[in-house]
Amino acid sequence: MGTKIRIGIAGYGNLGRGVEAAVAQNADMELVGVFSRRDPASVKPLNPAVQVRSLAAIGEFQNDIDVLILCGGSKNDLPEQGPALAAMFNTVDSFDTHAKIPEYFQAVNQAAEPNGNTALISVGWDPGLFSINRLFGEAVLPQGATYTFWGKGLSQGHSDAIRRVPGVKGAVQYTIPVPDAVERVRSGELPILSTREKHTRDCYVVLEADADAATVKQAIVTMPDYFADYDTTVSFITEDELKRDHSAMPHGGFVIRSGTTGAGTAQVVEYSLKLDSNPEFTSSVLVAYARAAFRLNQQGSIGAKTVFDVAPGLLSPKTAADLRKALL
Amino acid sequence: MGTKIRIGIAGYGNLGRGVEAAVAQNADMELVGVFSRRDPASVKPLNPAVQVRSLAAIGEFQNDIDVLILCGGSKNDLPEQGPALAAMFNTVDSFDTHAKIPEYFQAVNQAAEPNGNTALISVGWDPGLFSINRLFGEAVLPQGATYTFWGKGLSQGHSDAIRRVPGVKGAVQYTIPVPDAVERVRSGELPILSTREKHTRDCYVVLEADADAATVKQAIVTMPDYFADYDTTVSFITEDELKRDHSAMPHGGFVIRSGTTGAGTAQVVEYSLKLDSNPEFTSSVLVAYARAAFRLNQQGSIGAKTVFDVAPGLLSPKTAADLRKALL
Repeated sequence: MGTKIRIGIAGYGNLGRGVEAAVAQNADMELVGVFSRRDPASVKPLNPAVQVRSLAAIGEFQNDIDVLILCGGSKNDLPEQGPALAAMFNTVDSFDTHAKIPEYFQAVNQAAEPNGNTALISVGWDPGLFSINRLFGEAVLPQGATYTFWGKGLSQGHSDAIRRVPGVKGAVQYTIPVPDAVERVRSGELPILSTREKHTRDCYVVLEADADAATVKQAIVTMPDYFADYDTTVSFITEDELKRDHSAMPHGGFVIRSGTTGAGTAQVVEYSLKLDSNPEFTSSVLVAYARAAFRLNQQGSIGAKTVFDVAPGLLSPKTAADLRKALL
Repeated sequence: MGTKIRIGIAGYGNLGRGVEAAVAQNADMELVGVFSRRDPASVKPLNPAVQVRSLAAIGEFQNDIDVLILCGGSKNDLPEQGPALAAMFNTVDSFDTHAKIPEYFQAVNQAAEPNGNTALISVGWDPGLFSINRLFGEAVLPQGATYTFWGKGLSQGHSDAIRRVPGVKGAVQYTIPVPDAVERVRSGELPILSTREKHTRDCYVVLEADADAATVKQAIVTMPDYFADYDTTVSFITEDELKRDHSAMPHGGFVIRSGTTGAGTAQVVEYSLKLDSNPEFTSSVLVAYARAAFRLNQQGSIGAKTVFDVAPGLLSPKTAADLRKALL
């Protein structure tokens, strides 16, 4: 591989910053630039030498970018940007609204395929690496059960839900796997676990000056979908404490497949992540899959794809022969 | 998929029995028969309805078998059988002599390719699932270190080495990861670990009637390559105890990638297996990859391949659309 894979970043929040940092760790890639909807002059990349341009002008860069990594959000950005940008570029994104993946796949595929582009959707760790492990688990051990636990980690969606409660000035929410449930699963017991038995939710809340703590707490713990089905704790803290103690974005979790082979022999497979920064790790996954998207496209494999369609070897900068020799 | 994938088994030891059991767990597969070098009448499959035939006659079954799973050993069987059978069939094998994988790959490829067959080599958990996790680890976290620990598990090679010591009637050897080393790696510390610091070796030995225990013990713990570089314990037991307490073949281990992203953020990925039967689990992996070998061949992807060349989706009986909906 003589020339480097030319990467573009569309959207520059936590994920975009993580992609910038991850591209710098990969010697076979170079960053063409950051594309933002904001005024380019207001966007400050980690490396001041990185070019920032208006996302509106991205069409002019079709000959300069091999893979565009979409760093927008799944709720408002990607449903529009995914198809629009896959019509112009090979793309990788982290679309993570599980229920809408089939329709998103269709929309992106219809944009990418006629234009000869390859679009890897829903890349990251869940969906992404966790999905691969769920698939391997049931393919290798067809008799068994798969368990996914998340945490300990900061849940952006649940934190946002708390912030919408009247009287709340700021908040973070941590999802925590119940240790006893994890141990039961690891033991091969194949327990049937309710939502409440699998995870607890810890909330750290800053109140508005005039808010009533008891009322806010009640509104949180009874909130349907988000908290009502969980054992939830609410701790009230100051704005300074929120900033000082809860600015990191750790996350992680486990995918455990517990199954039996032969005449009831127990076999347990576990995949786990312990991440000090969720967005930086997700970005690193996106960048590895950008390499795969580039290669798939070179092989003529076009249209929308997911992690399920990507052979592991395509993720590595090493040649197939080197991989067989060094890693197999 | 209207018709089932027709599987043949070449070689009927622990692995062959495991494959028979695993095929029975997969509704999209059927077992054509077992092929053995022994007198077919002397081979007793788990299911008495399974046909046993002479391996010498396997050439007559080219139209009846979609994928042949090679269940011979890496030392004496596969170097000959792998290329010979890949010339006639799509194959999957568990060739695990790491240092000889490149030359084995070449030999199998030269047999499979001109005959339009697909041959998946070195499938199992190490090489196999562990290899995939080593690859993912360094592709996603290029700055970091990968650690593989094995055990607690019975090592066939080390057990055989003890049995060759004069005065030894029977023996098993367990490889055990050092808990402190595993914890240091999990913590993200990136320790540099010597061979001795990573694993200990526990030996259970039955002596011949006239053997001297101290002499046998000394011969074991000083054996180069196998034991000299490890802290090794030797326990002498009776033949009855060996049979009663050490007939199972548990194994397992961990692949841990510990790396950093951004400005030194720690990220730890761990894949672990806890297997009550090593051969049954390996067989289950072989069977899942037999499905992939069949599909690769149907897609026109021929020649020798490894787990690095197989997209995860090819392992599952589900359609790509179902996988996106249910597992992504």
